[in-house]
Amino acid sequence: MTTDKPSITVLGLGAMGTALAGALLSAGHPVTVWNRTAAKADALVARGAARAASPAEAVAASPVVVACLLDYDSVRDVLGAGHLQGRTLVNLTNGTPGQAREFAEWAACQGTDYLDGGIMAVPPMIGTPAAFVLYSGSRAAFDRARPALDVFGESVYLGEDVGRAALTDIALLTGMYGMIAGVLQSLALATSDGAPATDFAPLLTRWLQAMGGWAEAAAKQFDSRDYATGVVSNLGMQAASFDNLHRTADEQGVSSELLAPLGRLMRQRAADGHGHEDLTGIIDDLRKDNA
Amino acid sequence: MTTDKPSITVLGLGAMGTALAGALLSAGHPVTVWNRTAAKADALVARGAARAASPAEAVAASPVVVACLLDYDSVRDVLGAGHLQGRTLVNLTNGTPGQAREFAEWAACQGTDYLDGGIMAVPPMIGTPAAFVLYSGSRAAFDRARPALDVFGESVYLGEDVGRAALTDIALLTGMYGMIAGVLQSLALATSDGAPATDFAPLLTRWLQAMGGWAEAAAKQFDSRDYATGVVSNLGMQAASFDNLHRTADEQGVSSELLAPLGRLMRQRAADGHGHEDLTGIIDDLRKDNA
Repeated sequence: MTTDKPSITVLGLGAMGTALAGALLSAGHPVTVWNRTAAKADALVARGAARAASPAEAVAASPVVVACLLDYDSVRDVLGAGHLQGRTLVNLTNGTPGQAREFAEWAACQGTDYLDGGIMAVPPMIGTPAAFVLYSGSRAAFDRARPALDVFGESVYLGEDVGRAALTDIALLTGMYGMIAGVLQSLALATSDGAPATDFAPLLTRWLQAMGGWAEAAAKQFDSRDYATGVVSNLGMQAASFDNLHRTADEQGVSSELLAPLGRLMRQRAADGHGHEDLTGIIDDLRKDNA
Repeated sequence: MTTDKPSITVLGLGAMGTALAGALLSAGHPVTVWNRTAAKADALVARGAARAASPAEAVAASPVVVACLLDYDSVRDVLGAGHLQGRTLVNLTNGTPGQAREFAEWAACQGTDYLDGGIMAVPPMIGTPAAFVLYSGSRAAFDRARPALDVFGESVYLGEDVGRAALTDIALLTGMYGMIAGVLQSLALATSDGAPATDFAPLLTRWLQAMGGWAEAAAKQFDSRDYATGVVSNLGMQAASFDNLHRTADEQGVSSELLAPLGRLMRQRAADGHGHEDLTGIIDDLRKDNA
């Protein structure tokens, strides 16, 4: 098979690694794959991927190596020492910013150009416009690998601080889990009188969409550290009316435990003299250096 | 002033009651207002509202009475007994579904046609297309009052069960506070390395919008009570990777308390043998009758 597209190696063929390798094949890249359980590569090999017999062979096959393994320790174990010299390593394994920074030091010792990444998609979304992938670390590595990386979804480069992609990834997941917790709690309440959840959900979707500007407004307010200007519904009022949420949950036989920590933080901050402010200042209370 | 629009009485001139009365005046309704502190009516009277000297006088002035007071007890205290015979009462005071049902019984004894409501807007939104107001209770009362109610925003009638508007109101607020908790926690993390929140927020907004279909998908799944079909990222995997959120918060010196209850529920439900399912089943665990 002749192609002018660069050869890429993919290490790790879980659901995500398989989706990444598949997207590269679909885009016409020569792809070399390796997985500890070799049979997981069969379908990709049938589509034209080369199967490497070892991680060292896989790394030798391509100038750009994409790793998507269980965790950072696995990447280190699999890659071993001494094989990565002169390669560009793009690590899309899940981890924390601290793990990414520590890994980057190890990668530097191996003489590899290192890019860390966080995938904002589930495997079926890879290769579609709905996927985006965060990258941070070596700018040169990003520029070199980019034609292949753009195959996965939109590539978002966040700068040379190698921990930034993981931090941003985790912060986005955190926001998502807040929304999910709210939806679960909301559906539990709305169905507590026997009404179907599907009757209620369109209203909830509409309501959450109407609040869609809240994150950017809160961010602007947080950066200014001025939580008291232009407040429409202040923390004190909201903390007081929050009791209705707990009372309603009690009446309806629903646990309101998913909401309890926000209620506590609101009450505490109002008691600390911030009742006239917006909710945004709660961010300060979440930062342990300000506690 | 001559108008073919029906006369409306508004009881209670806090920020919200004032906004409601103002919107009615703007739409050309004759408006009679009453507030315990009479001076709060001055601006509305200057715009053409009639000031009632007592709640009884206010109720006598119009066939439709809109109440927006501190709580349900205040409405009962203000209205007293015997004045409401033959009137339509629209109560937009904040409360729980149980309080609404109890109040409806009292209203029935007064010979009044009763409609309960929940306003999904802050005062500045009243009279704009962004506002919507939930109603439940007497269908006849809703139909009769509707021309005036539509002035406030979109009127959404939820049926004869008088507690439904309050339950829906509280369930929507619950969903909103989940989103808010997620955004606060997310911004605390994203700024923990000193980066501006405004650099991060557009990504968060985009990410939450991409998840915008989650509520309706979860509602459909909940109504089917089949949490195991078509699962892309199962509860067990998500519970395991949730640890990265807590670890990252620890590394960055940020409390992750707003997320802790969801993490606990996920781990518990995975341990209970539901690890292969979607997250939606957590709703069952929030219902105390299933605990």
